[in-house]
Amino acid sequence: MKLAALHTDGGTQAAVGTDSGWVPLPFADVAELLGADGWKTIVASALDTPPELIPDDDAKFTSIITTERKVICCGLNYSDHILEMGRDLPTHPTLFAKYTDTLTGPTDAVSAGASEAVDWEAELAVVVGARLTQSDREEASSAIAGYCVANDVSMRDWQKRTLQWFQGKNFTASTPLGPWLTTADEFGADPHFTVEGWINGERVQYGDTATLVFSPADLLSYISTFTLLRPGDVVLTGTPGGVGQGMQPPRFATPGDRIRTSISGLGTLENAITV
Amino acid sequence: MKLAALHTDGGTQAAVGTDSGWVPLPFADVAELLGADGWKTIVASALDTPPELIPDDDAKFTSIITTERKVICCGLNYSDHILEMGRDLPTHPTLFAKYTDTLTGPTDAVSAGASEAVDWEAELAVVVGARLTQSDREEASSAIAGYCVANDVSMRDWQKRTLQWFQGKNFTASTPLGPWLTTADEFGADPHFTVEGWINGERVQYGDTATLVFSPADLLSYISTFTLLRPGDVVLTGTPGGVGQGMQPPRFATPGDRIRTSISGLGTLENAITV
Repeated sequence: MKLAALHTDGGTQAAVGTDSGWVPLPFADVAELLGADGWKTIVASALDTPPELIPDDDAKFTSIITTERKVICCGLNYSDHILEMGRDLPTHPTLFAKYTDTLTGPTDAVSAGASEAVDWEAELAVVVGARLTQSDREEASSAIAGYCVANDVSMRDWQKRTLQWFQGKNFTASTPLGPWLTTADEFGADPHFTVEGWINGERVQYGDTATLVFSPADLLSYISTFTLLRPGDVVLTGTPGGVGQGMQPPRFATPGDRIRTSISGLGTLENAITV
Repeated sequence: MKLAALHTDGGTQAAVGTDSGWVPLPFADVAELLGADGWKTIVASALDTPPELIPDDDAKFTSIITTERKVICCGLNYSDHILEMGRDLPTHPTLFAKYTDTLTGPTDAVSAGASEAVDWEAELAVVVGARLTQSDREEASSAIAGYCVANDVSMRDWQKRTLQWFQGKNFTASTPLGPWLTTADEFGADPHFTVEGWINGERVQYGDTATLVFSPADLLSYISTFTLLRPGDVVLTGTPGGVGQGMQPPRFATPGDRIRTSISGLGTLENAITV
């Protein structure tokens, strides 16, 4: 099942995908839907007697999460990239936070704003489907609502101003998320995905989530030991090699460039960089 | 004016302080109050004809912010402490994020949980009273709703597991905030405060916010250049010297200890550490 959030005249609305278009659901976004009791029944009922059908061409996708949720990111998580850099594998995940204001839609422009070092980070995003606290790996795995694509666009100049990455990772509307959530039941247990990133049609990133040091379930379980996770919270699982700051010389996106992120079976984000 | 959030049978409720007790207001917390149009008129009307008066002894204070807001913290901000450590003064503030789940009330117990290195950080907290985006220092200064006391209790073992401090700063209900907001109009322009921290009655921290490298208005202005600030958002301004990890040997709080934080004119937090 594919779940998205669409722009409407008055705001945003959750929707479920069908072969012939999108059926709107009475929630502002996917997070609110996932937090509702019996949401699967609500979706089934809407599919049974669709109140409306929005053709694919008319569907204006926004970030699947628009209401306030936890967006927790993991850095340094692809073992092949860590090992090729000559580093040891980490014993604990490197985590940092994004505010929901940072999220934006799958085809929205991303403003460079006051940054002169806009970088791309193609990432698998995992969306939480249940409350998790002190959860083991098994409980965490069964609480994964589904997966989508993220580009953790990073303002490297701001990120490196201090030891803490926060400010370079929290520019308003700088993190495309989507294009929709594909629910976990579409895949087997512990699925893995290929993650790719492009700039202006040139593929610069490639990774396989089978090489993640910390899997989605590992991350949800670990995070749940110190903070509550709720339906609609999002965990970004890190980016493979090929980001601009790792190039010799470093290369960054500037206004006019287009960045693209694609994950096998989950879809594609394509975003222009603007001033 | 003093504004607080009180526990009620059904949840939490904002309240305004008077000489004879607290008058409840129709908002869940101080953040929701500050976000309401004409909130000063609403408060004046409640003071004029109080629906109820809760004596001080019956007032059960919770964190002044209980609904989801941005809580942004600044590290390494007291110039006298930075200089005594032999470091250069920073050119940009070191910022990191707390989720609202991290906040707790002024006399609530703080659980050590899975940490064996619980440390104290007495801090001045600044509460935002207006929307701020790309704001200069003057606009930011006039948007300060008021001030309160915070203890940025830090799980040093978790904080130091990786380069990013996030996980050691985001244990559920680990950051006492309160006891109430004192509105900015109680002070002159750019007020400064003395900040003190104790463990078990021994004073271990002392600082004067006049020595902050980045003042409250500096911080709000800087943060507003990359993310929107809204009424009820909170900025913690950093801690002076005297934290446990800076001692020789390092000293941490363990279950049974009591930590206390006090700021001149703003009040006191006192919190037991529990398992």
